[in-house]
Amino acid sequence: MTSPESALDTRFALAKALAQEAGAMALDYFNRRDTLVIETKRDMQDVVSIADRNVEKLIRERVAAHLPEDGFLGEEFGLTAGSSGYTWVVDPIDGTAPFVSGMPNWCVSIAVLHEGVPVVGVIGAPCHNELYAAAIGKGAKLNGRVLTLDPSRTIRNALTGIGVNSYVAPEFVAGMVSQLLQAGGNFVRNGSGALMLAYVAAGRLVGYYEPYMHAWDCLAGYCLVKEAGGWYHPFPTEGELLTKGAPVVAGGPGARADLEKLAGIA
Amino acid sequence: MTSPESALDTRFALAKALAQEAGAMALDYFNRRDTLVIETKRDMQDVVSIADRNVEKLIRERVAAHLPEDGFLGEEFGLTAGSSGYTWVVDPIDGTAPFVSGMPNWCVSIAVLHEGVPVVGVIGAPCHNELYAAAIGKGAKLNGRVLTLDPSRTIRNALTGIGVNSYVAPEFVAGMVSQLLQAGGNFVRNGSGALMLAYVAAGRLVGYYEPYMHAWDCLAGYCLVKEAGGWYHPFPTEGELLTKGAPVVAGGPGARADLEKLAGIA
Repeated sequence: MTSPESALDTRFALAKALAQEAGAMALDYFNRRDTLVIETKRDMQDVVSIADRNVEKLIRERVAAHLPEDGFLGEEFGLTAGSSGYTWVVDPIDGTAPFVSGMPNWCVSIAVLHEGVPVVGVIGAPCHNELYAAAIGKGAKLNGRVLTLDPSRTIRNALTGIGVNSYVAPEFVAGMVSQLLQAGGNFVRNGSGALMLAYVAAGRLVGYYEPYMHAWDCLAGYCLVKEAGGWYHPFPTEGELLTKGAPVVAGGPGARADLEKLAGIA
Repeated sequence: MTSPESALDTRFALAKALAQEAGAMALDYFNRRDTLVIETKRDMQDVVSIADRNVEKLIRERVAAHLPEDGFLGEEFGLTAGSSGYTWVVDPIDGTAPFVSGMPNWCVSIAVLHEGVPVVGVIGAPCHNELYAAAIGKGAKLNGRVLTLDPSRTIRNALTGIGVNSYVAPEFVAGMVSQLLQAGGNFVRNGSGALMLAYVAAGRLVGYYEPYMHAWDCLAGYCLVKEAGGWYHPFPTEGELLTKGAPVVAGGPGARADLEKLAGIA
């Protein structure tokens, strides 16, 4: 039997390799996106293409080949239970709307859960040639450079990321925007929640709030933010909750009180 | 005396060369941004650094050397009147907040006005190695590729850019967000209005709305959007109005009615 440390290292190394391989595949689709057929899911703003599906298939196949006892949850093909205690949680392309529109703000997001906790978080942003990687107790890095959050950054002297989708009523979104601005903050929404969480880990945004998000959108970013010295509001991972949506809130130390208040979890 | 055509060509060529030279200078500052002293202007979200000032100085000096009779309006050093009938309108770094935070969403924005109309619009996005360039009657290009807007794109099947700053009340911003979402749209705010206008010209966003913006933020983007087949709500350029703020609205043909309604100018 492998030690827990070696089990973590194995998965961390594989996650990094897969984020790069999958990122290269996604970038190839991006560069010929005019040839992709764009389908819609819940509404006309919720788009998907063969790129999302084939990138997820690649990651699933690689994980199944290397670690056949691990579980796997992906945005496009759902949950495959495992027996090792480790579950991969993957968004093959987070930010599909920017992707199909030709904007560079999209990423490949790969997390590994163990006992309900995201122990590996790797996010690749191919258009920017950036790889964000963290594993529990090992810190967070961007292209090999250690990320450490500055506690003096607050919602008043830095930008906050927000996410919006049709699960949330327009009036609720309006309320959170108004409250953030009234508190002296300002927001960014680049269309990829996972990438914005990576930006929180890198200190580019001071925090992130989205009222309704899925596990594949947030768990890799959560691990990154935590390992960079930040905090997150835990995502419910027990049983079928893992496949449902929940509020996502994370940030640097100096933004905690304000963001918890904004999200109504203070 | 030079012909109007030759006068336009001269300025278009200079604007493109300057966007690249200034972009390289800005990118150099960006790559060593940890060493910059960040100052605040109107509020703690309104930031500036030596990078903004020195990039504007570079562009001013080059224009003064080549075309000493042209006017020049820059965000950092204000208006210098000219006598040629042409006025350069420049934001040396649009998106200073993303810039100082380490996000790639910033740009150099260079417009040339003639008789109140933006006749040249060049936007350089150094982190993405992209140069957007348009001149009146000559079309818009991104890295040499002709941009042509797709009239089938609407606020319902594409993303809309929005801008927000402390000139506008939080409740007003909340109202515009709510109205856009209720109409079936969704928004991006990447922190650089000029870059989002360039994205409109490239078909990445279907439109852009910001309730209060300055001439240096929007005029280059306006020329790009118009030349790509879109439209804009004219910015007041007469006399001292050129240095004041005004609503900015622009988009592709399929987004016009919705965005004019959103901006209350229908």
